[in-house]
Amino acid sequence: MHTPLCDDLGIEFPIFAFTHCRDVVVAVSKAGGFGVLGAVGFTPEELEIELNWIDEHIGDHPYGVDIVIPNKYEGMDSNLSADELTTMLQNMVPKETLDFGRKILTDHGVPLPDDGSENALQLLGWTEATATPQVEVALQHPKVTLIANALGTPPADMIAHIHAAGRKVAALCGSPYQARKHADAGVDIIIAQGGEGGGHCGEVGSIVLWPQVVKEVAPVPVLAAGGIGSGQQIAAALALGTQGAWSGSQWLMVEEAENTTVQQQAYIDASSRDTVRSRSFTGKPCRMLRNDWTEAWEEDGNPEPLGMPLQYMVSGMAVAATHKYPDETVDVAFNPVGQVVGQFTKVEKTSAVIERWVGEYLEATGTLEQLNAAANA
Amino acid sequence: MHTPLCDDLGIEFPIFAFTHCRDVVVAVSKAGGFGVLGAVGFTPEELEIELNWIDEHIGDHPYGVDIVIPNKYEGMDSNLSADELTTMLQNMVPKETLDFGRKILTDHGVPLPDDGSENALQLLGWTEATATPQVEVALQHPKVTLIANALGTPPADMIAHIHAAGRKVAALCGSPYQARKHADAGVDIIIAQGGEGGGHCGEVGSIVLWPQVVKEVAPVPVLAAGGIGSGQQIAAALALGTQGAWSGSQWLMVEEAENTTVQQQAYIDASSRDTVRSRSFTGKPCRMLRNDWTEAWEEDGNPEPLGMPLQYMVSGMAVAATHKYPDETVDVAFNPVGQVVGQFTKVEKTSAVIERWVGEYLEATGTLEQLNAAANA
Repeated sequence: MHTPLCDDLGIEFPIFAFTHCRDVVVAVSKAGGFGVLGAVGFTPEELEIELNWIDEHIGDHPYGVDIVIPNKYEGMDSNLSADELTTMLQNMVPKETLDFGRKILTDHGVPLPDDGSENALQLLGWTEATATPQVEVALQHPKVTLIANALGTPPADMIAHIHAAGRKVAALCGSPYQARKHADAGVDIIIAQGGEGGGHCGEVGSIVLWPQVVKEVAPVPVLAAGGIGSGQQIAAALALGTQGAWSGSQWLMVEEAENTTVQQQAYIDASSRDTVRSRSFTGKPCRMLRNDWTEAWEEDGNPEPLGMPLQYMVSGMAVAATHKYPDETVDVAFNPVGQVVGQFTKVEKTSAVIERWVGEYLEATGTLEQLNAAANA
Repeated sequence: MHTPLCDDLGIEFPIFAFTHCRDVVVAVSKAGGFGVLGAVGFTPEELEIELNWIDEHIGDHPYGVDIVIPNKYEGMDSNLSADELTTMLQNMVPKETLDFGRKILTDHGVPLPDDGSENALQLLGWTEATATPQVEVALQHPKVTLIANALGTPPADMIAHIHAAGRKVAALCGSPYQARKHADAGVDIIIAQGGEGGGHCGEVGSIVLWPQVVKEVAPVPVLAAGGIGSGQQIAAALALGTQGAWSGSQWLMVEEAENTTVQQQAYIDASSRDTVRSRSFTGKPCRMLRNDWTEAWEEDGNPEPLGMPLQYMVSGMAVAATHKYPDETVDVAFNPVGQVVGQFTKVEKTSAVIERWVGEYLEATGTLEQLNAAANA
């Protein structure tokens, strides 16, 4: 399992692992893949601590940092500082919507913060104003050889800045149209994510999307995302012309991840039909496990989810509750995951996952070789 | 491009083509694939004429017939004859819903039938009562070696009857759960259709669904459906353990098809984001081009689509209108198609499609072989 992109990046396998856990980043890169740390949720100071830790433990292996600058979000044209923008956005959250979020939690026996702080969430990386300092931190770390944007084409000056620092830029897309915009802006690696994918995703399925994006942006390399959880699926991705696989869900299910046992058990119990594309946490369609929180925001007569990043100023309460009560099954938790969740049966070591995927890949491609050989015999 | 299932069925390539056009059935089977005629819409007498024509033109090649017996539909437990069932169901269509359908058409300048017959549609194959005579007709034709059911597990006595006649049974599914029911009932070939697919489909994407179904029912052979429109996509399907590909959308775009130029142009113009899973034509979620008809049934305040087969007693007007005005762009037409529509750029000869797919398949599998060889060098 090796493509030209591996040589460009100095890695053994074209397995890109998106994760919020520094331990997973290190384990993936050390096993021959390419770990990518999701920066959303970290202050620049916290991110600096994480990257320092990774640098100390990852040896000579490269890794990436993933940021979130949506193409469109509330307040994007305001030119305010991060603090000013946060205050402005907090004031834009309707009391009715916030009260509805509070009610879902109290109806489920989840205590609210008693200091009235539930609406005081910071915008840790959800906008250009808050993502830019994260990029500055990342570029101070030479082993960070790739900056990926999860939700749109990065601004032109940011791409130029990252290139000037000798690093590559990647960006996710859900259509050939978005892929074209990325390529025209100078993005080095396009990540085509099918609607199966966990987190923010479009509606076009991977099997259809991947080859369309490959054709659209050739010769720019494309990574396949959405539905990657085995070596067979990577073989399919490479058969469709991509140069590797970008995966997220699988890395929630490794021993090195910080995800709680309750959450991992929820993923093991779920079938592929138990996920939903919902705006109820981030304000943009994002695939996650269906539960009482996501259902409540779908019901006629209830408040509609707000836009990005306003909705997170409401849902952040539910996210905090999940982390606070890790040993209870709280059916209002944020469990972002792709349809590939239906394949999960256990928690594995990160290195065992990579080893399994490589073995499965060789088995799948070996089967194709045998079929061709038999047809020619 | 050859799998063990090809030997079982006596065909060269594991390319299964679903179509309502007898000419396409013949062209596919003669080109080395396996044509399958969709029987819905034909009376038993009409079906007999179609199959006789196919028998005369297909040479020694085998082909299949596709029927529709949904697992659930209005009136399924009634034990009525086909005629009695039709009358009962016609009386179940609310006047408000029928008037709404009429209004959409008249608002678009589409004249209604002037004899009041728009609600007199027959149930041509949408139930067990109406599909059973179609099976009887099919079994009189020895070259029909496969009967497929598009929407559920065929009844046990029907499976036994088809097997007793020495033919195979196939059935579509959208989840491992449905696949298990098919396999337990003795279905010989399971067709796993991802949510990308045209026509009736589930929500799980092909890249995730296919390997889950393969694992669930092994060693029963699985065909991959949903997103098949190139040889690369067939290579991906075989890498995921399926034994072949079941396709429908592509065969709307061949010279031998009866589809109108207007409809084919609509498919060429559409991107993969222009389809929608809608209940507005058949009563069950069915993927098709989004248009004014599908949108009208989504709007708050408008009547909800009825169940299967009642909704078709309303939408049949729109379907008839499409056929009646083939040279006009009528934005209320029924254009079932999968997300793969985004790949279509032209109308081809059927034999050219098969040839192209085989070439693309060999190119894709050749690339994988080269990558493996380079990695081992």
